[in-house]
Amino acid sequence: MSYDKISLKKHRDLCGKIGITCKAKIKSADDLATYYTPGVAAVSREIARKKCKVWDYTMRANSVAVISDGSAVLGLGNIGPEAAQPVMAGKALLFKEFANIDAYPIVLNTQDAKEIIKTIKYLAPTFGGINLEDISAPRCFEIENELQEIGIPVMHDDQHGTAVVVLAGLINATKVVGKKLQNCKIVINGLGAAGTAVTLMINDYSAGHAEILPLDSNGLVCGRDDINHHKKTVCNLVKTKIQHGGLKEATTGADIFIGLSAPNVLKREMVASMKKNAIVFALANPTPEISAEEAFKGGATIYATGRSDYGNQVNNVLAFPGIFRGALDAKATKITSKMKFAAAIALASATGKPTAKRILPKPLEKGIALKIASAVATQAKKEGVIRPKCI
Amino acid sequence: MSYDKISLKKHRDLCGKIGITCKAKIKSADDLATYYTPGVAAVSREIARKKCKVWDYTMRANSVAVISDGSAVLGLGNIGPEAAQPVMAGKALLFKEFANIDAYPIVLNTQDAKEIIKTIKYLAPTFGGINLEDISAPRCFEIENELQEIGIPVMHDDQHGTAVVVLAGLINATKVVGKKLQNCKIVINGLGAAGTAVTLMINDYSAGHAEILPLDSNGLVCGRDDINHHKKTVCNLVKTKIQHGGLKEATTGADIFIGLSAPNVLKREMVASMKKNAIVFALANPTPEISAEEAFKGGATIYATGRSDYGNQVNNVLAFPGIFRGALDAKATKITSKMKFAAAIALASATGKPTAKRILPKPLEKGIALKIASAVATQAKKEGVIRPKCI
Repeated sequence: MSYDKISLKKHRDLCGKIGITCKAKIKSADDLATYYTPGVAAVSREIARKKCKVWDYTMRANSVAVISDGSAVLGLGNIGPEAAQPVMAGKALLFKEFANIDAYPIVLNTQDAKEIIKTIKYLAPTFGGINLEDISAPRCFEIENELQEIGIPVMHDDQHGTAVVVLAGLINATKVVGKKLQNCKIVINGLGAAGTAVTLMINDYSAGHAEILPLDSNGLVCGRDDINHHKKTVCNLVKTKIQHGGLKEATTGADIFIGLSAPNVLKREMVASMKKNAIVFALANPTPEISAEEAFKGGATIYATGRSDYGNQVNNVLAFPGIFRGALDAKATKITSKMKFAAAIALASATGKPTAKRILPKPLEKGIALKIASAVATQAKKEGVIRPKCI
Repeated sequence: MSYDKISLKKHRDLCGKIGITCKAKIKSADDLATYYTPGVAAVSREIARKKCKVWDYTMRANSVAVISDGSAVLGLGNIGPEAAQPVMAGKALLFKEFANIDAYPIVLNTQDAKEIIKTIKYLAPTFGGINLEDISAPRCFEIENELQEIGIPVMHDDQHGTAVVVLAGLINATKVVGKKLQNCKIVINGLGAAGTAVTLMINDYSAGHAEILPLDSNGLVCGRDDINHHKKTVCNLVKTKIQHGGLKEATTGADIFIGLSAPNVLKREMVASMKKNAIVFALANPTPEISAEEAFKGGATIYATGRSDYGNQVNNVLAFPGIFRGALDAKATKITSKMKFAAAIALASATGKPTAKRILPKPLEKGIALKIASAVATQAKKEGVIRPKCI
């Protein structure tokens, strides 16, 4: 059977992938009195007396909501909340399996950014963190920004989960080929949620030294007048020399290509026009910007995709469970840039000695999430972005 | 240890009472590909093709959200969302233990009725049903009414769960004392969420024949000018003779007293002024309107409370798990009056032969929820309030 058939069958057989489990059991009238009325009133009174006690006495401290409006689901586009549900539940499954986080999949029947922001603010007291998922650009930027001050970590995984894994992969890839990221010329094709976050994170990591050339489907972005506010912000931040042209112009003499765009847009000749020891991350899913065969024929030294059937899989599951685990463990109030860098460095280091065929660990290797969590938690404490003690 | 101490300790030790469990396990790259990408895309595509497939392939068909704004929690009042959280989680625990329903506790950081309605409409695609909880009157009426047409069952348990159990208790209590409910004079003290629903359900069940005297904290309600819209609606529906006075006037010659009000407001002399074989439901929690001792000294034949330490406990857990189980099983789009009657009758019958000391089963008796579920599902199908087949 194909994955499609197996997946449909398994989802139907199991009626989805997750459910509720009871940590307490109701076997006697005493249990009922302890966990429900009248006993539960003592817990409610204690939290009413001091709101922060909610973190000690309820599920909140280990809970993350995985929230989507179904506007940009996988490579399927705007398929709506119902069809997004299995992806959110899949994410919840991974949160539990990789980081023992109780994640609650929630799909919203609105795609209005302001309404989504308001709804998530209303939902916030239930959860210890919010993982935004599969929300289309540019609304995802506004939504995530507006939610940074609600007192719990909020992260749009399509942006930052991807950026953390890409950066970790690049740290190792450049090490393998003996280059320094800050001296590289980097082409980033696709300026949606992921492409934007990857661009900004690499730029920030290289302290603005790397030469970054962002492109959208109309070509090189910076220097054009027809670009939106978010793309302008990106252009104001990155160092970029060539201002006009398309992928052909951009790739000439580049060290690194990162695609978060569309199938088969990168040609063998373009890879051949890149510098020696070219690094190609072709992350469009399920069909990459260039096949492994073509990339290597073009002379690429390192090739990565989002797929599980080649080596070097750039998969968000390498990052998000550990990032949220660390944030929850540290009682963080937000996920900062430095916490994301800490995650990327920890992930790069969790790979062991990198080689061209292994710039990242495989998703199922043990202990990755915990290594990332530890680095993220340490950084949160260092920055002091944690809740005050509840006395 | 007191229940308070035990409850605090257990809640802290367990970090709350519920969590997420995975029905699928991720042990191999194949599992990852089946339950997450790329396999999950097949499920999303199938639901995108035909939205109703969400019921077959996701957790939705067995999911209920337990939603509160923390405005009327237990007897503690408006203690806010954080402090309401342990009660909602307790409810979720009972849903799972008694009816194998996956219930998701959600507390909202708004008490604006219109915002709550909107938020729940946005959340609806995630869940198979909505259990509203601990939302104060009169907002709870507006919120519940506005949500009746969203295509999934929505029930405010403080209203209807209570009303179903009270009606079941009354069916059996009147049988024990040899009276017919429709010939009774019934005093209902307290016209909040529960009192209003109890009044309307009894009135409806007796086809308007029972003489019902509703009171609020200012005395008999009908005939007064200072009452709100919701109380006026109640008065327009019930048959009531005495229009003025307080509990003393109302109880004189009454067959049944139902208190959903405040501690110790019913006096022994008032019970003594009731008809022979008086039925007293003193449901204020944790301190009832009259103690068992005083009620029996006043001549009551049947006495019930909300507490677990006397016989005849009127406890919502007898009803809500079965009602939602039945609604989910039948694929119901709403919970109608007749479905609630079916639940009350099934619950009364699940008691076996009633006696003065046993007008209701105990919460932990086996099989009650399933008996109610079966009756509710049958009624839903009979009325045709079910989703069309998804082909």
